[in-house]
Amino acid sequence: MKPPIEWVDNRVRILDQTELPRKQVVLEFDDYRDVAQAIKSLQVRGAPAIGVAAAYGIALGAQGIKAKGKSDFDAELNQIIEVIASTRPTAVNLFKAVTRMRAVAAKDDDVSHTKVLLVAEASKIHQEEEQSTQHLSQLGAELFENGITILTHCNAGPLATAGYGTAIGAIRAAKAQGKNIQVFATETRPLLQGARLTAWELMQDDIPTTLITDSMAGHFMNRGIINCAIVGADRITANGDVANKIGTYTMAVLAAANSIPFYVAAPLSTIDLSLSSGDEIPIEERNAEEVTFIRGEQIAPNGVHVSNPAFDVTPHRYVAAIITDRGVVKDPYDISLKALFET
Amino acid sequence: MKPPIEWVDNRVRILDQTELPRKQVVLEFDDYRDVAQAIKSLQVRGAPAIGVAAAYGIALGAQGIKAKGKSDFDAELNQIIEVIASTRPTAVNLFKAVTRMRAVAAKDDDVSHTKVLLVAEASKIHQEEEQSTQHLSQLGAELFENGITILTHCNAGPLATAGYGTAIGAIRAAKAQGKNIQVFATETRPLLQGARLTAWELMQDDIPTTLITDSMAGHFMNRGIINCAIVGADRITANGDVANKIGTYTMAVLAAANSIPFYVAAPLSTIDLSLSSGDEIPIEERNAEEVTFIRGEQIAPNGVHVSNPAFDVTPHRYVAAIITDRGVVKDPYDISLKALFET
Repeated sequence: MKPPIEWVDNRVRILDQTELPRKQVVLEFDDYRDVAQAIKSLQVRGAPAIGVAAAYGIALGAQGIKAKGKSDFDAELNQIIEVIASTRPTAVNLFKAVTRMRAVAAKDDDVSHTKVLLVAEASKIHQEEEQSTQHLSQLGAELFENGITILTHCNAGPLATAGYGTAIGAIRAAKAQGKNIQVFATETRPLLQGARLTAWELMQDDIPTTLITDSMAGHFMNRGIINCAIVGADRITANGDVANKIGTYTMAVLAAANSIPFYVAAPLSTIDLSLSSGDEIPIEERNAEEVTFIRGEQIAPNGVHVSNPAFDVTPHRYVAAIITDRGVVKDPYDISLKALFET
Repeated sequence: MKPPIEWVDNRVRILDQTELPRKQVVLEFDDYRDVAQAIKSLQVRGAPAIGVAAAYGIALGAQGIKAKGKSDFDAELNQIIEVIASTRPTAVNLFKAVTRMRAVAAKDDDVSHTKVLLVAEASKIHQEEEQSTQHLSQLGAELFENGITILTHCNAGPLATAGYGTAIGAIRAAKAQGKNIQVFATETRPLLQGARLTAWELMQDDIPTTLITDSMAGHFMNRGIINCAIVGADRITANGDVANKIGTYTMAVLAAANSIPFYVAAPLSTIDLSLSSGDEIPIEERNAEEVTFIRGEQIAPNGVHVSNPAFDVTPHRYVAAIITDRGVVKDPYDISLKALFET
């Protein structure tokens, strides 16, 4: 697989996730507005990857600022940051990356030096995601017994993290440890990240994978074929509530009904202690055509009314454990999550 | 809407459900093998409609038998029945129709008269489905309070029943009674019967409908936007377990988790007292391409392993009531369902 995101010669390269698995198209951007559009259009997606792309996008925008004085530079940078920050509302990694880039820009009065610092900070955010996903994947793998079958929903692998993966990272690490594991991957309507990306990533690692529609997961849990479930996250609040791809709540409820552990894997960058519960997370509503068209083919009547929330919130009571790069935590999450940030 | 199924001039006409909602194509068959193929390929689908189509298919096959002697006729008819009966394993209406047609064929020793009787019996099965779906829809409508929002999964309307509909019939009847109701229709992957057929049928009756992916139903239940759920059935066993379109079990579990009543609407022809529980219902596995291709567009990697069960089983403990043409029954179903056949 080509690198999901790269900073090369003052340009941002992104492996276009909307073209996968049919072809690996690498987009190269020298305008931050194109990076913003790539985030909006899901050419790059997945909470940690959005954070990394946003940081590089801000660094890219900064390089193009002509102003010599710092206050003019700051004004222009602010506009760039606004464009990047307004791409997608749910994944907190985006806003954390923005906050870090803002803080770095405020550090130095020299414009040239600030431009260098911004690239360095974006690169550091990228490196940290690589390391934290590696680490949390090792911790997550410990939860998987030899011989089990794992359900995953949407895509939380290398593409989604610009790293080793979160939910899929834990699965990859278990495989690398020599464990005999199987995966059921939900296709994840409407945008089919499971069918297009997860199945593809798992096949590249020779992990036995069965693709199913979202509506089949319950059936296979109920028949005793699926032994546990693991997903990534777009935002985890202080009480352990989890915003993730639409359908995640359903998987969690099904897991509970069938006494199957439901795990969430996410780096600390996805945890938002500033929100007390999932009720406060903004849920992105995307356009109707994502539901009514598939690859340009219309699949619903003209004029039908559609709802298309991109995420849902899984209450923490359904979450058996949250796997982070600083350890695996359990309920009471309001205490255990906070403790992670204090170590 | 053109009639879903008709017997006209010794031919069977079927409104091709695979072409909807884009166009209303009426297929006309003079060979029973084509009727069998239409059932297999889902050009006609929905448990009651399959029963009606099967009966007409057998009647059609009988007209073409050249044998003059009754025993030769019976031998040929048996082969025809085998072809029709082997099309789809889950919906019990198919097998009940076959049993009725067999019984009628055994009544008379005259070949010509038997041919007439078979057409009459198929027509009677059709008429009974029309009447029973009308009646059960009136009973079902009573369960819907004014102002509520109802979830339905897959398609259980006129197309699926060659009548008024079951789940959608109850919704139509409530609307006809002047009730202000709204519907959330799941698209129903893999074959999108909800997006293509349910949304289309409901729009024709001016019933406010929101199309969602299957993975969104839980979210809207959890947000308090959906107040109850109703589905049809392909087979209901003596204990009240319900085989229906894959994903139905998931909707029932979600309804229970959100304290929302989950109703099943089906005529007596869908109830199979010969099976004690859902574990005994054969679940049809369909081909992988239904999942990996949508309207000819490939949406998953080459060579990915797929499971594609067409149905699942919802345990009776999740079913708030079963709405039949002889009354609305509740748990204990082993007693209440049996009583329906004794009235």
